[in-house]
Amino acid sequence: MRTLRLIGIGPGDPNLLTLAAVDAIAATDVFLLIDKGASTGELADIRRDMLTRFAGSDHREVTVPDPPRDRDPADYDAEVRRWHGERARRLYAALTGSVPADGSAAILVWGDPALYDSSMRLADDMVATAAAAGELLDVEVIPGVTSVSALTASARVPVNRIGEPIHITTGRRLAQTPVGADRNQVVMLDAHCTFRETANADDLIWWGAYLGTDHEVVIAGEVGQVGEQIAATRERLRAEYGWIMDIYLLRKP
Amino acid sequence: MRTLRLIGIGPGDPNLLTLAAVDAIAATDVFLLIDKGASTGELADIRRDMLTRFAGSDHREVTVPDPPRDRDPADYDAEVRRWHGERARRLYAALTGSVPADGSAAILVWGDPALYDSSMRLADDMVATAAAAGELLDVEVIPGVTSVSALTASARVPVNRIGEPIHITTGRRLAQTPVGADRNQVVMLDAHCTFRETANADDLIWWGAYLGTDHEVVIAGEVGQVGEQIAATRERLRAEYGWIMDIYLLRKP
Ligand SMILES: C[S@@+](CC[C@H](N)C(=O)[O-])C[C@H]1O[C@@H](n2cnc3c(N)ncnc32)[C@H](O)[C@@H]1O
Ligand SMILES: C[S@@+](CC[C@H](N)C(=O)[O-])C[C@H]1O[C@@H](n2cnc3c(N)ncnc32)[C@H](O)[C@@H]1O
Repeated sequence: MRTLRLIGIGPGDPNLLTLAAVDAIAATDVFLLIDKGASTGELADIRRDMLTRFAGSDHREVTVPDPPRDRDPADYDAEVRRWHGERARRLYAALTGSVPADGSAAILVWGDPALYDSSMRLADDMVATAAAAGELLDVEVIPGVTSVSALTASARVPVNRIGEPIHITTGRRLAQTPVGADRNQVVMLDAHCTFRETANADDLIWWGAYLGTDHEVVIAGEVGQVGEQIAATRERLRAEYGWIMDIYLLRKP
Repeated sequence: MRTLRLIGIGPGDPNLLTLAAVDAIAATDVFLLIDKGASTGELADIRRDMLTRFAGSDHREVTVPDPPRDRDPADYDAEVRRWHGERARRLYAALTGSVPADGSAAILVWGDPALYDSSMRLADDMVATAAAAGELLDVEVIPGVTSVSALTASARVPVNRIGEPIHITTGRRLAQTPVGADRNQVVMLDAHCTFRETANADDLIWWGAYLGTDHEVVIAGEVGQVGEQIAATRERLRAEYGWIMDIYLLRKP
């Protein structure tokens, strides 16, 4: 039986790999790289450094190009399902083509594999592809430090006040957070600093970008005081480095 | 200047320590143990094993008893503040009494130090205590793998469906989650399986206890099908081992 490992690698700092992730990297024959077209150079470098440090000397890397996708289909859901299925078949073919019948492949997943990431669904689709071929695929998931924890550690702020709930959402959904769920919000995947449309001037914000990398930056304060500075910093750094990953905690006073 | 490290040790499995946590443990002179009275044996054992494996041979452990606390005060908030302040003063006294002026102390924090944990507030209070004495205390926070990630990795389930928000709450607050924030809920600190009062029979649940330890158990299914089994299992294991830590993901279909 072949093994597929989804290895959470944490938010960017190789020292935030767990011992379990290091062991899993060392035990893996083949690393599957999903080519998303736009290959962000520094992120690829971080992954490559981890493999150089921790993978076995005879490990291999196999890049699997994403299948073409109809971005404007008549039936959106059907097209997404078709595309996911096709991607799983390509990855499973790459896996069986490169890994012996008792060997292992791994996908390195940024942060934790369960949080805003499609690798678990992809693994399920690959298991289904295997089953359709009468084969077994064992899946192992290794949890990782999330970018939420990276933010709160660097900003030195608890993610919740005593006993309060935490709401984790995306820039796109931020405006829909119901009242009562918005006392402590963590916002990910926000390219537009959407807090400027939803937050009050006296809400508190802790914003972090490139956490765990050499470019790490944290800005904290009241939205009314630091909001524009955050938006300007985000634009400047994104232009300077060509990419950005950022996350923030918003808190009602 | 003395350093205080808050080291996230993950959800229980020593292999879920990060390399940064291992390095921080090795670099620390004194480990402060906060005696909460009810010292749960196996959790103390897990911490002790980590120190045995990773701490320097000349490290020391200092146990700081919690100050007495009025559980039924006239002014609840004032009493909590007084108690927190007193605890910080005791810990800071233990720190200065045991750590040289350029040395370091650490508190090992279960999971991630930012999530439902008081150690960051405690560290702030200790910094204030230091400042009142004209001294400086440097605080370092090392993020850890949360029990949320341990649950989702063991249960092999993404914490959110594509793009959906995640609400993290406690058993006590579960019934107050607003409609619209309840599609993916993670519930911690729940001694009463409160989902039995809030969830529909066809809601999905992934429940995990003792994650990352030898007793790890996961039960998943529809609340109507596995809810009572979870509650019964929880009672049985808590009685058998004398303690339990459990967490669950609730999802609307
Ligand atoms: C597709 S999600 C993946 C999240 C990841 N699985 C985790 O556990 O953090 C990508 C988003 O995570 C956040 N993120 C991930 N790494 C980050 C970092 N090093 N610094 C800041 N934000 C980060 C950003 O909000 C980014 O838009
Ligand atoms: C005081 S909170 C601390 C949470 C911790 N800081 C974290 O990041 O997971 C304790 C709660 O965390 C959850 N928990 C922590 N470790 C766990 C484990 N190994 N298995 C199951 N639940 C756990 C339980 O819900 C427990 O009531």
